[in-house]
This record gives sequence, C-alpha cells and structure tokens, in this order.
Amino acid sequence: MQKWLRFEHAGRVGFGMLEADTIKVHQGDMFSSPSATGQTLALGEVKLLTPTRPSKMIAIWNNFHQLAAKLNAAIPNEPLYLVKTSNSFLASGGTIRKPKSFDGKVVFEGELGIVIGRTCKEVSESQAPDCVFGYTCINDVTAADIINRDPAFQQWVRAKSFDTFGVFGPVVVTGLDPLKLAVRTVLNGQERQNYPVSDMIFPPAKLVALISQDMTLHPGDVICCGTSVGVGSMKPGSTIEVTIEGVGTLSNRFE
Amino acid sequence: MQKWLRFEHAGRVGFGMLEADTIKVHQGDMFSSPSATGQTLALGEVKLLTPTRPSKMIAIWNNFHQLAAKLNAAIPNEPLYLVKTSNSFLASGGTIRKPKSFDGKVVFEGELGIVIGRTCKEVSESQAPDCVFGYTCINDVTAADIINRDPAFQQWVRAKSFDTFGVFGPVVVTGLDPLKLAVRTVLNGQERQNYPVSDMIFPPAKLVALISQDMTLHPGDVICCGTSVGVGSMKPGSTIEVTIEGVGTLSNRFE
Repeated sequence: MQKWLRFEHAGRVGFGMLEADTIKVHQGDMFSSPSATGQTLALGEVKLLTPTRPSKMIAIWNNFHQLAAKLNAAIPNEPLYLVKTSNSFLASGGTIRKPKSFDGKVVFEGELGIVIGRTCKEVSESQAPDCVFGYTCINDVTAADIINRDPAFQQWVRAKSFDTFGVFGPVVVTGLDPLKLAVRTVLNGQERQNYPVSDMIFPPAKLVALISQDMTLHPGDVICCGTSVGVGSMKPGSTIEVTIEGVGTLSNRFE
Repeated sequence: MQKWLRFEHAGRVGFGMLEADTIKVHQGDMFSSPSATGQTLALGEVKLLTPTRPSKMIAIWNNFHQLAAKLNAAIPNEPLYLVKTSNSFLASGGTIRKPKSFDGKVVFEGELGIVIGRTCKEVSESQAPDCVFGYTCINDVTAADIINRDPAFQQWVRAKSFDTFGVFGPVVVTGLDPLKLAVRTVLNGQERQNYPVSDMIFPPAKLVALISQDMTLHPGDVICCGTSVGVGSMKPGSTIEVTIEGVGTLSNRFE
C-alpha cells in the first residue's frame, strides 16, 4: 500500500510518497517508474495539488442499489456517465466556490474515485484491475437544480463542471481492495453519508472494463463511482469532508 | 487573416502558419507570442495534427433555428451543452473508427468551431470576441442511438466521445467574421449540409460569454457551435468532408 500525492513547494510542482506526515519526494513518472530523490518534506510545509492531472474525469450516475431504491430508479443496464471538465478540478484544502451565475443549491456527493494507471482500451473485467493505479476520495459537487431545468436536454456536464466542482484527493492509494471500503461524508462535523462500496451496481473492475470499450483510458484519468444516500446541499461557510478509511480525508471549505 | 496548424514532421511536433501550401514554422506560444523560426515545410510533407490541444471541447445542442423547426424542438433559453473527451480528438486526414462495442448508426455533424485564445471567465458578450483566437471546422461524430436508449439518463457524452469522434481542423483561422460563414458537409462527393452560421440561436460571442459564466475557458479550448439540417449516417468506407469557406476542408475516412 502506497500513498501518492502531488504538491507545490517553493514555487515548484512535485510528487511523492506519503509516509505518516512525511513526503518522500520522487521524480519520473508516478505511474510507471518513479524514483526517490532522497529529499523529504513535511506534509505541513507543502500546498497539496490534485493527486493526478486527469485527461478526463468520468462520473457515474445511479450506481448504488440503496440510492436507486430510495429514488425508485430502475437498475441501469449499463454504466450511465457524464464528464467533469478540467476547470472544475480542485485539491484537498481548496475552496469550493458558489458560482456567481447560479443561485440554487450546491450539493456535495462523497464518492470513491478510481485512478487509472496505464493506457487501456477494450479490456476485460479480469484485465481491468491491472489498469488501476489506485483509489482516491471524490466530492462530486453539483448544481443540482440545473440538471433538469430544460425539459429537452439534461444538463449533467454543466451542473457538475463549474470551476472548483471536481474535488479529489488528498492522495491516491495503491494496493487496496475497493469492495472492502466505505465512503463517509461529514458536513460541518455531522456525518451525512456512510455507505459501503460493496453496494455498487457496477463495481470498479466492471466500470473500467465497460468504459474502456468506449474510450481509451489514460494514466491519471479518474472515474468517480457515483454516490449513495445522504447527499445534501451546503451553505456558504461550510466545511465538507469525504473520508475513505485507508485513503484519507478530502477536506474543503465551501464559500 | 492567419491560418495556424499543428503538425508532426521527422518525429517532431511543431506548429506554424499556412500560406498557400507552405508552412512557416513557428515557436513559442501559438496564442500569445509565436515567432517564426525561418524554417518552411511543404504541407504535403507533414502529418497534420489537431490544430490545438483543447483542455476541453464543449459541444452545443439545438443551436440552429432551421433544425429546431424541423425537429419541432423548442428554442432553448440558454445554451445546452455537453463535452467531448480528449480521447475522441482526431485531425484532418485521420480515420474515424466505428466502435467495436456499438452496432448502430454513426452520424456526421458538420459544425463551426470556436477556438479560445486567452483564459477567460465571466466575460460579457462585448468582451467575448477578444477571447476568441479563431475558427475551425468540426465533425461532431455521434453514435446517435445511444443518446436516449436509457429512459432515465441521456448519454450525450458517451454517444459523442468514442475514440476518433471529436474531429476538428485542418487549421484555425483568425480574423474572420463568423456570422458571414457557411458550413458545408459532403459525404462521398454528395453535398449533405450547407447552412449559414447566421441562423444560430446563440451566436459565437454569446456562447463564449454565457459559457464563461460557468467555466473558465483556456487557450486552445474548442466550442462546437452545434449543427443544422442534413445530418446523416456514414457507411464504413465513406469519405466525409466539412468545408467552411476561408477556413478549409476537414476531410476524413470512416471505417
């Protein structure tokens, strides 16, 4: 199990492996052959960046049995997905901003994120785990009122791609069994979500395999696995945290 | 009026200005301060790449009065958009591939593409033209049968983001008045689309201004302005061309 992160320190962008509160700085390619430089930094002295720079962030809708039952939504025949654009990406510690152009509710959605580790296309479910680098925490922030306000066209991408709405980190963790994980979301100190990944309709290996039939996936790409029960809106001034045991806590302010 | 393109030559990626069939190779940043290297190349000796590497490609739905009337679709109150992911990007001369996982119709959509030239957020309609670098031709390839096959979730992103479905080029042209342009699509030598940009519901300056309220736009980003009447499906073995007078012809095979 290794924890990888990206950071900014002394005006320089770098990456490294986190052990307790110490970053062992590395160089090279995080996904294939990173090598330790020998330098170490304290976690407290760097600014965290998103742990990867995805060429795309794919977000799944309706992927948990418990939420589907609550919403009385049919179990989908195939993964249903949209994309969150790169302008939305935000690291742990960054501030989620209410868009000036939107006056409705801004909703948190705690999720498990799959981080791709190698270029893959048309892989099988049994090959899929080899394509996964690790897992991260996601806050799939959404301007929910926008999605269905035009009767002819669902505005999924727009509702989820405002600047600062694609929150992920703080690290990517390798060597985990995702089906043993749980996702916990805490708003201003109060637990709002706590659900097991094992309740997924399309578990991670199936998602990677099926999406790779459509799209080539690249190292650093992120698949947000969808959320379950307990999502809600945030008031400006809130602190929102998504915790996955073994991965860490993604913590952000909302203003 | 300048025509800019990206190319691969002798294993190297470069960019330059096209004059007749000669590329004047440049260095630096295409969008801010490109400088001529003095080298020239014949257009015929390079492999064309997509003219920019967008951080996002936004595609508008239902943006022409004539098509809306034909489909009996309501005129939208705001631009309705999705995103085409970077794995879909394909240059002029590349081959559009029928996905192995999809057996339905693959549809061409000839469109005008706006190429952003500077980082912009929350700009007005009068400021928007200063954010535009130029215009390009788009073939917004679509696996149309996928969009509505799940009754609960419109799969716009997926239908339009298969590998090779985001076709644009061959160049970006600066200094054009987009409202005087027409988009012409020719399938296997037969004209299938020929419509004026002036029929747009949200013209380019309005699109840039409104989308910039949601998302920061970056140099090289592309907004596909939507298509009008005449779209249709392609049989493997077809040649599909999108021509905009003053910009050029985006030509691709479909296999």
